[in-house]
Amino acid sequence: MEIGLRREVLGANAAVAAQIRAGLQQSGAFCINLISSPGAGKTTLLERTCELLKDRVKIRVIEGDISTELDAERVRRHGIPACQVNTLGGCHLDAPMIRLALEQLGPVGAPLGTEPAASPPGTEPGPELLIIENVGNLVCPADFDLGEDAKVVVLSIPEGDDKPLKYPAAFRRAGVVLLNKMDLLPFSRYDLPKVREDLAKLNPGAAVFEVSAFTGEGLDNWTQWLMDQVMKKWDASRSERTPGRSPGR
Amino acid sequence: MEIGLRREVLGANAAVAAQIRAGLQQSGAFCINLISSPGAGKTTLLERTCELLKDRVKIRVIEGDISTELDAERVRRHGIPACQVNTLGGCHLDAPMIRLALEQLGPVGAPLGTEPAASPPGTEPGPELLIIENVGNLVCPADFDLGEDAKVVVLSIPEGDDKPLKYPAAFRRAGVVLLNKMDLLPFSRYDLPKVREDLAKLNPGAAVFEVSAFTGEGLDNWTQWLMDQVMKKWDASRSERTPGRSPGR
Repeated sequence: MEIGLRREVLGANAAVAAQIRAGLQQSGAFCINLISSPGAGKTTLLERTCELLKDRVKIRVIEGDISTELDAERVRRHGIPACQVNTLGGCHLDAPMIRLALEQLGPVGAPLGTEPAASPPGTEPGPELLIIENVGNLVCPADFDLGEDAKVVVLSIPEGDDKPLKYPAAFRRAGVVLLNKMDLLPFSRYDLPKVREDLAKLNPGAAVFEVSAFTGEGLDNWTQWLMDQVMKKWDASRSERTPGRSPGR
Repeated sequence: MEIGLRREVLGANAAVAAQIRAGLQQSGAFCINLISSPGAGKTTLLERTCELLKDRVKIRVIEGDISTELDAERVRRHGIPACQVNTLGGCHLDAPMIRLALEQLGPVGAPLGTEPAASPPGTEPGPELLIIENVGNLVCPADFDLGEDAKVVVLSIPEGDDKPLKYPAAFRRAGVVLLNKMDLLPFSRYDLPKVREDLAKLNPGAAVFEVSAFTGEGLDNWTQWLMDQVMKKWDASRSERTPGRSPGR
């Protein structure tokens, strides 16, 4: 009975996520879903990432929190459009929440089916990055597809080196793992090779970056990876729109 | 519909929690429910607390995790009986899981309705501390009563000073808040007075202790508080059992 209901909830979520994914596919916007425990540094990483990339690509942000508008305000201070979703006690974002947020943010990427010439001024399609910051929770968000291209799981050094094994679902589904707060490594008992080994066993395909949002260490590798994905998706969507044109690279 | 179902789930949980609470009331065992994000230091705090108190009071532990038996093994190394509950993906412990764990651990405190003379050797009733370590999650565990006397919420410095406002439910229901990893305060941007102020607004009745499970700082105040509660509950239960006797203090 309980399992039946869970399947139904996840099935309804998956249907909406598929619609979101199809829309993002057509517009060519690349979307990541940031997942971590509270306080692993998602918002600070997001701010640093926006600062480093905002002159190279259009960015929009959806902020998920149980309560408060604090995080969206932090993002808007960087000149980035951000929509705050408050789950009012809910422990994760789901696809219907993202659909509503996208309606508020306005069309992402190119309006569906339009070409540059047909777009109103200021809405010319171009590469775009949509960042969703999930509720701080390493468990429940892993189950809910939001239509993203990649789940990015942030794990901070002070959380300890046993976390991949203890919370395997999020790490198994990650496209990227960001090991954050590397600046605190010297003050921690932390077996970094063991964490890398555990991650490789759980998810050999995930990219792993060692970073510190505080000092900036390692952010160049992470943002380079991100820009590569953004441009790959944009090029692919452009060649799909104009079938006569060869892919951009 | 969804709200109706949630009410039903919580109602069923509350009924079992009430049974557990009644059993603990009768046996005189004091029970805490440790709640925090993954990696805030619950298990290390639990180990240090056991080391400091195990010669003064009988302790038993229920370890909640999504997977692995790692934490129960850590506790058993200190000579403390521990039962591991794996939720197999579930994001919180519920009261039926605790009832099952208590069956495995054996009767807690004095067997119900018995007096010292009637107890088999080695099971003489006495003050007892039952520690439940919840799944690492600052959101969902706050909703589920496990029959405990107090929820103890652990918040570590590296998680950031905005967490009480962003995850208010856990802090509102806490009997105690442990601010852990105080040794990392010098390396963090952290507004400790603001956190204390936010906590006082959310929950003026909660006891707040600044501790470091790593260095041992502040653990004396925390364990003294805990022992006071253990002895108060034991004395009250003893005076209930023998109505002719006046309370122990």
